[in-house]
Amino acid sequence: MKSLTEYLKFNTKRRRAFVNITPDVARLVKKSKVKEGLCLVNAMHITASVFINDNESGLHNDYEKWLEWLAPHEPTEQYDHNKTGEDNADAHLKRQVMGREVVVAITDGDLDFGPWEQIFYGEFDGRRTKRALVKIIGE
Amino acid sequence: MKSLTEYLKFNTKRRRAFVNITPDVARLVKKSKVKEGLCLVNAMHITASVFINDNESGLHNDYEKWLEWLAPHEPTEQYDHNKTGEDNADAHLKRQVMGREVVVAITDGDLDFGPWEQIFYGEFDGRRTKRALVKIIGE
Amino acid sequence: MKSLTEYLKFNTKRRRAFVNITPDVARLVKKSKVKEGLCLVNAMHITASVFINDNESGLHNDYEKWLEWLAPHEPTEQYDHNKTGEDNADAHLKRQVMGREVVVAITDGDLDFGPWEQIFYGEFDGRRTKRALVKIIGE
Repeated sequence: MKSLTEYLKFNTKRRRAFVNITPDVARLVKKSKVKEGLCLVNAMHITASVFINDNESGLHNDYEKWLEWLAPHEPTEQYDHNKTGEDNADAHLKRQVMGREVVVAITDGDLDFGPWEQIFYGEFDGRRTKRALVKIIGE
Repeated sequence: MKSLTEYLKFNTKRRRAFVNITPDVARLVKKSKVKEGLCLVNAMHITASVFINDNESGLHNDYEKWLEWLAPHEPTEQYDHNKTGEDNADAHLKRQVMGREVVVAITDGDLDFGPWEQIFYGEFDGRRTKRALVKIIGE
Repeated sequence: MKSLTEYLKFNTKRRRAFVNITPDVARLVKKSKVKEGLCLVNAMHITASVFINDNESGLHNDYEKWLEWLAPHEPTEQYDHNKTGEDNADAHLKRQVMGREVVVAITDGDLDFGPWEQIFYGEFDGRRTKRALVKIIGE
């Protein structure tokens, strides 16, 4: 069994952002030399997500508006978590909707993707250095 | 390490539908001859889901109503994504709630399931051919 | 390839509860002797979740309130599923938001976690015995 472990770093300028990491993950699959296996990509912070969806800016606006409706950032006092001195409770909620991780099949040495699948890092409490993990196992 | 890769095809008559794919996945686990391992099942389209829940039609009605409340199909103009000419922005949102994929343990040659677990393909923008992927790895 | 399969049992006193299972999972990773691999942890019941987030009681209150807003337990008659005699339709919905499972990388013999990641069993219809599965594969 082969394996590869790498960490991607992010420091988004805005509190919330979506970053397309498909090329990074595809490069690591090649580097792993795994032909048949699984590729796990997960946020290592609990106010961020890794998810697969469309690389279309209108849709990303829709996600931003929808997540703000589902779990508004303000008023920050509405959340018990923010009594700890944080202001990011909403980010912990948004991350549950969008998910922590994706597991992608590797077939014949490549990410086995449908026509529009792209991997995104979803940041909900940015403006500081955070990481995602890529773990590949297989043969 | 053994592996198996197969694709399931769907073409639902209605825009939204839930299809029980447990027998298909169980059959592929047998075919793989994997005794101990992991089975990934994921939608290959970003307006569909694969999820595990109950095979009960009342619950499926509840999901349908709930997802329409969370992310209504209409008015389609409420979504920026639909400015591209699509009318399926809601499907991209619904799919995030229900999830892209499941990973199921294979133990002693079978899906290692609790008493009520069943795997569903959740379609939110059907009436055309779409696929799910089944990837099995193990020994 | 090494593998390990174990089942964790729960019987929460209250209908809804969050249980930190990180020490249990970490112990099983050690027991497996897997140095590089993947660890799947999933609820085996469809009214429960396994998820990764913060071990902070204020945040858990926020999740409880938020999930009750998203999918209220009462009135129980609002759900078609409850016509079967159940009263737990809301639990099936809440579980979709929080997720069924997590897949965690194992690196150098340990769970490869970011600074605040903790694994929780999320119960939405407790007061009876239920299980989560831990499956570890790797080398």
